[in-house]
Amino acid sequence: MARIRQTGSTDVAVPSASPVIPGRGRLRPLGLGEVEITGGFWFDRQDVNSSATLAHCQEWMERLSWVGNFQAAVEGSLPEARRGMQFSDSDVYKLMEAMTWEVGRSGSADADRRFRGLVEVIAPAQEEDGYLNTCFGRPGQGARYSDLEWGHELYNYGHLFQAGVARARTNGPDEFVEMAIRAADHVCRVFGQGGIEGVGGHPEVEMGLVELARLTGEERYLDQAELFIDRRGHQTLADIDWGRAYFQDDMPIRDADVFRGHAVRAMYLAAGAVDVAVERGDDELLAAVIRQWENTIARRTYVTGGMGSQHTGEAFGDDFALPPDRAYSETCAGVGSVMLAWRLLLATGEARFADLIERTLYNVVATSPSPDGRAFFYANPLHQRVPGAVPPQDVESHRASSSLRAPWFHVSCCPTNVARTFASLAVYLATADDTGLQLHQYADSRIRTTLEDGRMVGVDVATGYPHQGAVSLTVIETSDRPWTLSLRVPAWATGARVIDPDGGSKPAGGAVSMERAFVVGDVIRLELPIEPRWTFPDPRIDAIRGCIAVERGPLVMCVESVDLPDQRNVGSVWVDPSVSPADHGESVIVTGQLSDLKSEPWPYGGDTTAELAGPGPDVDVPLVPYHHWANRGPATMRIWIPVTPGEARHSN
Amino acid sequence: MARIRQTGSTDVAVPSASPVIPGRGRLRPLGLGEVEITGGFWFDRQDVNSSATLAHCQEWMERLSWVGNFQAAVEGSLPEARRGMQFSDSDVYKLMEAMTWEVGRSGSADADRRFRGLVEVIAPAQEEDGYLNTCFGRPGQGARYSDLEWGHELYNYGHLFQAGVARARTNGPDEFVEMAIRAADHVCRVFGQGGIEGVGGHPEVEMGLVELARLTGEERYLDQAELFIDRRGHQTLADIDWGRAYFQDDMPIRDADVFRGHAVRAMYLAAGAVDVAVERGDDELLAAVIRQWENTIARRTYVTGGMGSQHTGEAFGDDFALPPDRAYSETCAGVGSVMLAWRLLLATGEARFADLIERTLYNVVATSPSPDGRAFFYANPLHQRVPGAVPPQDVESHRASSSLRAPWFHVSCCPTNVARTFASLAVYLATADDTGLQLHQYADSRIRTTLEDGRMVGVDVATGYPHQGAVSLTVIETSDRPWTLSLRVPAWATGARVIDPDGGSKPAGGAVSMERAFVVGDVIRLELPIEPRWTFPDPRIDAIRGCIAVERGPLVMCVESVDLPDQRNVGSVWVDPSVSPADHGESVIVTGQLSDLKSEPWPYGGDTTAELAGPGPDVDVPLVPYHHWANRGPATMRIWIPVTPGEARHSN
Repeated sequence: MARIRQTGSTDVAVPSASPVIPGRGRLRPLGLGEVEITGGFWFDRQDVNSSATLAHCQEWMERLSWVGNFQAAVEGSLPEARRGMQFSDSDVYKLMEAMTWEVGRSGSADADRRFRGLVEVIAPAQEEDGYLNTCFGRPGQGARYSDLEWGHELYNYGHLFQAGVARARTNGPDEFVEMAIRAADHVCRVFGQGGIEGVGGHPEVEMGLVELARLTGEERYLDQAELFIDRRGHQTLADIDWGRAYFQDDMPIRDADVFRGHAVRAMYLAAGAVDVAVERGDDELLAAVIRQWENTIARRTYVTGGMGSQHTGEAFGDDFALPPDRAYSETCAGVGSVMLAWRLLLATGEARFADLIERTLYNVVATSPSPDGRAFFYANPLHQRVPGAVPPQDVESHRASSSLRAPWFHVSCCPTNVARTFASLAVYLATADDTGLQLHQYADSRIRTTLEDGRMVGVDVATGYPHQGAVSLTVIETSDRPWTLSLRVPAWATGARVIDPDGGSKPAGGAVSMERAFVVGDVIRLELPIEPRWTFPDPRIDAIRGCIAVERGPLVMCVESVDLPDQRNVGSVWVDPSVSPADHGESVIVTGQLSDLKSEPWPYGGDTTAELAGPGPDVDVPLVPYHHWANRGPATMRIWIPVTPGEARHSN
Repeated sequence: MARIRQTGSTDVAVPSASPVIPGRGRLRPLGLGEVEITGGFWFDRQDVNSSATLAHCQEWMERLSWVGNFQAAVEGSLPEARRGMQFSDSDVYKLMEAMTWEVGRSGSADADRRFRGLVEVIAPAQEEDGYLNTCFGRPGQGARYSDLEWGHELYNYGHLFQAGVARARTNGPDEFVEMAIRAADHVCRVFGQGGIEGVGGHPEVEMGLVELARLTGEERYLDQAELFIDRRGHQTLADIDWGRAYFQDDMPIRDADVFRGHAVRAMYLAAGAVDVAVERGDDELLAAVIRQWENTIARRTYVTGGMGSQHTGEAFGDDFALPPDRAYSETCAGVGSVMLAWRLLLATGEARFADLIERTLYNVVATSPSPDGRAFFYANPLHQRVPGAVPPQDVESHRASSSLRAPWFHVSCCPTNVARTFASLAVYLATADDTGLQLHQYADSRIRTTLEDGRMVGVDVATGYPHQGAVSLTVIETSDRPWTLSLRVPAWATGARVIDPDGGSKPAGGAVSMERAFVVGDVIRLELPIEPRWTFPDPRIDAIRGCIAVERGPLVMCVESVDLPDQRNVGSVWVDPSVSPADHGESVIVTGQLSDLKSEPWPYGGDTTAELAGPGPDVDVPLVPYHHWANRGPATMRIWIPVTPGEARHSN
């Protein structure tokens, strides 16, 4: 399907370069040659990712010898010279994936040069039989696959495969792609029928194998992915202190009702399962994943889209156990959730998956990096009670939380996950099917594709989204026969309207589809009501009972102490939901009261309402987009704000 | 001061046998020869502890070779034969402490035999220079004191010292006491001035050293304890992922404002600091600990008295971060809190410390063991969302939470901590000073002591406490001169009355002191209003906003699903605080509603009040004492119950 560039050439368009290209499904993904973000919120982030983050990540991984581990493998100085965690190889691969998407997106010569440089370092470390890992298999190291729980060998391969696929799809086959293929062949030999009947402690290889099968047409890779999916849940991994649910090895994926255990592991496994289900036409498996997704969205997901409410085991908590302050909501779980929802969107065409992608991109993934692209949040709590510490700038941070964005982490999966997501972000904007184009995410962009019948269709999108709600689409490619343009209307966008090229206006709920013989220059306008709105939680979410939040369009807002008089702790803020929140530029103003309660010797007893009676006059409380928080130094912050007691009956 | 029994004799009274005998302070502790629990709530637990728990703990430690490690040390089969965590030695010592208190309490020949048997195993393992540890110092093991963060060598000694003191005070000097002294001399040589300038990762040795100094008059032990207290907080321990606060090594104890980090470590350190402060007359150090205690009680303590709100690092959370469901509230932190509060009570005479002891004993320590004394809670959450799993009965549990009480744990500090607390529990009931007796805790008991001027005074206490509020005291020893009987009135006991021997009745708030020339047979009655009462939380405790609890006397109550129609999840219960809770035997009935909310696809959005409107007719909701929960099989449970929405204005 793809016109693939040859190695060394950077001037050939690669329309279908995309991380996920299913063999079947309701929607067809577009590639980086078909969708381009041209301005606005995400363009700025792609720009910073290209100009700063890629080099930043490489510098840290060279400084900490995560790249050097490969050199040491070649030089024979392992295990003594080895540095970093057992999965540090994977971060190099994820960075390479980001670089090669960046080449595909922008043709960046710098990213291409960096990528090739890393290949030169890594390639010689691959062993004759395809095995590639700097942490196992040499004298003085653990034996290959001797620690399936924590060794991360298969996990590392998964990232190698995804990077290899990205390279093949943006550049064409080369030495690196061949490395990935050799490693995949090795995995199939070792873990295939008759081989080790195990799974890796951290899912990821499943997605990589399926995508490599899609790239190469090699059925064995798909078989192996299916084996891994089916083997998991049969307790082949150890029963660790956190239980086998940590690895999703507590029950077969077909039997589970909800995501549980380590959140990133759960997302990666589910995404791999969807890949297998789609390729095999395994509707039962697909339905099992969708059932788990539905229950997780209804009961175990933060308003930001964040997943994982427990620091312990970086894991999902019980239903409705969603503490905002101890939210883990790991950046990588957000990336994983986007990957999963994207696969489900392609498989089903259902807008709810695109809704979650939008929510998660704006409120989890975009929250992680600093504006300069050189520091990151690992965890994304919804409430910061004490101003975060400034993390070390010269050594990697050992703290996944309770600090401001850190330049690098001891476990540094998140920065490269953000980088590869940003570099490939355009692909999430739109899809195609036999009848036309579907727009899922709104950004200044140019979208063009060739339909199955050979017609070229395309639109330019102009918008101030997410800060403004007007989206203007101009048809730039069409044919004289009708085709269908579908626009997702986010679930929150009550009162949205669409205006067709003739000026006809109609209410738009759910997706809007417009079938007509468009002409070049036709303008379609979508008006999304992004006015700030109060959001109430399900009463079963105990941790935020009596609180409300404000959302504005797709953005979750928060109050940050740097915006309060005397930088008071956000714990002093109470809001009155009987007054509607008001726009104030890209901020929102709500009416509230400030009350610093006096400390009682013992915080439990008689009715404490009296203490709060008359907590002072109404004040304007400014809220900023959550993704923007902690960009102005240490601060306290909260998304869910208590309702002033007299107003509690409105909200509880 | 003590008349000490000679080794081998079990018929000599040891009046002052007590874990803590300060050289100065406002109150003087009584010993096991002076206070005896004769019936009721705690008597039953002491009985089970004696008849079941001591043997249960020994069986598990023999089965898992934690005792065998000492034999292996002598036989030279370490490190290969070593089993258990690096601190397993300490559990043997804590069990021995429990056994020897039991000998002191009841004269149990079985406990004495067990104790002596363990001494025979352990004694030969002590090395020439006093070093005693099964985990370090041999070929193939880590060098002595090579891992101060996690090695637990000093922690183990602390428990050895406390056990040695207990033995000396209940039995008199013997081989085991000498072992403790030799080990203490070793510690002073190695860690004294000019030695290793470090501290252990887990405080405990400080308390042990001070008590050994009190026992022996050896000033060097006190000097060493003071050195350890003063050294901590100067960052000599590693900066681990959870930060140095985990070890309380982030700042000197004199500079801290609140307890933080690992809760058990924090309690043990603070208790040791009080010991040092008292012996040195260091009022600044004492004031520093009291300040931290006050802030911790006001902001970081559960209504149960439980401490430690984070599973991660088993640690205190931020101020007002007190999630009921993810409460860790480790049993050992409760025991440590009792130890600390007891020292503060002796030092200051202030009733607030006895209040916390009562709260913690009834609602944390008593919650841990099963009625048969053969299974224990490690963590004591205030909300169980999913019925706990039945833990393994034949192997040690690796789960500190999310299961029912387990017979034993991989890390099994809690069972022996409960055992030693129960065996010595009588000492917490009363104290003496120059003027008379002070009663702090109410139980069927006999309390007698000799005042400084040689007069013998004593009372018999008869009560159905905590289930009934009437306490009757009969004078059994007195003199013809006046002396003072003081009775603590718990802070919750609004409306308490005291009736003097003449029948005169007066309101009793705080402590009640009665100075008179009592005669034998005088009866004093204290009437504590233990009727169930609503308890509201401080509005800053976000996790329980909009919820209320019921307390009855010193007992925190809870709703348990086994008491609900169809064993519904406690998440379906809402209560109406406008109707007072009513007694129902030892249970309480509140008025509430049951409402199983329908699941929404996305749990955030518009006003959700409507869903709860009319959640059904009023029903009686039974509440049971929290310490009793999970004794009837897997169940969900909660202490803090949401207020029915229409009633929210009463509670928020």
